[in-house]
Order: sequence, then C-alpha cells, then structure tokens
Amino acid sequence: MPTVFTSRVFSVEVDTIRHPNGREHEAAIVRHPPSVVMIPVREDGRVILIRQFRAPLKEAIWELPAGKVQPGETAEAAATRECEEEIALLPRVIEPLGSFYPSPGFCDELMIFFRVSQLQPPAPDSTIKPDEDEEIETRAVTVEEARGMVARGEIVDLKTAYALTLA
Amino acid sequence: MPTVFTSRVFSVEVDTIRHPNGREHEAAIVRHPPSVVMIPVREDGRVILIRQFRAPLKEAIWELPAGKVQPGETAEAAATRECEEEIALLPRVIEPLGSFYPSPGFCDELMIFFRVSQLQPPAPDSTIKPDEDEEIETRAVTVEEARGMVARGEIVDLKTAYALTLA
Repeated sequence: MPTVFTSRVFSVEVDTIRHPNGREHEAAIVRHPPSVVMIPVREDGRVILIRQFRAPLKEAIWELPAGKVQPGETAEAAATRECEEEIALLPRVIEPLGSFYPSPGFCDELMIFFRVSQLQPPAPDSTIKPDEDEEIETRAVTVEEARGMVARGEIVDLKTAYALTLA
Repeated sequence: MPTVFTSRVFSVEVDTIRHPNGREHEAAIVRHPPSVVMIPVREDGRVILIRQFRAPLKEAIWELPAGKVQPGETAEAAATRECEEEIALLPRVIEPLGSFYPSPGFCDELMIFFRVSQLQPPAPDSTIKPDEDEEIETRAVTVEEARGMVARGEIVDLKTAYALTLA
C-alpha cells in the first residue's frame, strides 16, 4: 500500500483493491485518523457552536467542536481534550451517539459522536492550549435556533447538521 | 496552488492560506467535485438503499444513491443520471433538501441533497450503464426501518444517516 502523499492531517495511499467479485481495481484512498464530534449541552439546554476558518472553503463556518483522535488516545479522552481546546470547558458527562463515515467512497475517517454535558472550567494549571492556527469564536444557542441555522443554510457542515438531529 | 496528487476521484493541493488574522499557514487540501445524494421515494413511501463495496473500509455498506457532478452538468442532471446508474430508475420529481460539506477541515466537496420521486424505468435505448467497478445491491425499506438501521449501526454512512432525518 504505497503512501504517495503525507500531510499533518491526512495521507494518500494508492492501493490495488480486490473487490468481492474478484476483480482488482486501483484506488486512491485518503487515510485520516478517527475523529470525535461533540454536542456540548449547557445546564440551560443551549448547545455551544464554534466558528472557525476552514482553508478548503476560504471562509469561517459554524460547526460543533470536533477533532482528531491522537495515537494511543481513547475517543472519550479526545472528546474531553478537544472541548478544552475549542470551547475552554471540560465535560464531566460523555455519552456516545454513534459513529459514521463522512466520505466512505475515498476516505477512511470515522467520526465518533458524543453528547457532552456538566461542563466545567478547566483547571487553572491545565497545559492544554488551542491549536496555533485555530482562532475560534463560540456561541451558545438553543437547539431550535441551531436547527433554524441549518434550515436557512447558515450551518453548512454535515456532521453538525446530523448531530443537531440527535440533540 | 500546486497540485501534488491527482486521481480519478480527487486531487490534493498544497496551498499557503492567509487566515483572517493575517497569518499564513500551509494547508493540504483534497479537491473533490460537488456530489449529489438522493433519497429515492417510491409510491408506497419506501426509500431505496444501495449496498456497495467501499475500498477505504474494505467492505460493502448501505447508503443512499450518490455520485459526483460531472463538469458542465447541473446537480439535477447528475441526480437523474446517478439514479439511472445506481438503481435503474429515473425520477420525474427532484426536490432540493440543502447542501452540506462532509469534511470542511481538509476537503472542498459539497454534497447536494435531493428527494427524488415518481420513479420510472429508464428508456429501453438509454446509453447510461453502471460504472464498471460498481456492483450494487438495492433494497426498498420504510423510512422507519431505515432509521432503525442507523440506530443499530447497520448504516454507518453519514450522508445517509442525515438524509434519513429529512425523509
């Protein structure tokens, strides 16, 4: 499985894949670690959205907090770490909501969804800091408001649109 | 924007992107044409799912029909063509349901969702044929059954899970 390209976020392999019918096809596959997607729910029922710049779209968009699972890290630990990095809150309750592939045709990324709640400020001596290229705005909205943002095309991120149906 | 890799499905560019804060970051971006995702609804209310082998997962999974928009093609024309290729039915009614990015962090693919109905057999002299590497099984299920497949982890495709919330 020769790797033809590697970046900080993903790599590309060109493989010869044997299909169930026995025929072999060459396929280019984007390899991406699993990621976690969180619905952070506050005590008042509002969910926390983030807005960040996305290079492929050349604009900032509203999404739920999310991020890659690091090597050796559990999905729950990644969910906790990403909440601290992206919304500066630590969840005390983490509930799994299922796992889905956003692009199974060419990419192996699995997105693992969680509802996270009982959000607390991080410890003052925490060493977790936002990624240097992430400038993140946050907003707490009701689930109804967030679903209105989806319906009006103000939320264009698929994982966020799906997760809000579970909130 | 140097292209560092090209395949039949996507290409990879490495760009230097200026963020809103004025700082520049190098980013690897997967370029992928827009795609269409269809919820084919029969007269009896059942929706048609397809099962096909996905090389990145090395297994066949249940999904809604979907495919790339070809250069110069409208999204509606792509939806019609992909229905004929994947479920051998032509929709007479095509209703837009919104557009979403499945992986905005590293890929520019936009998925355009449609409800398609009044499904007819294609013309006997149609020249549209399935892609040679696609062996596709189809199944018509009630929306409730399909949502049960999502809840039980039998549907793991994100676009399908989301679209079924709109069906």
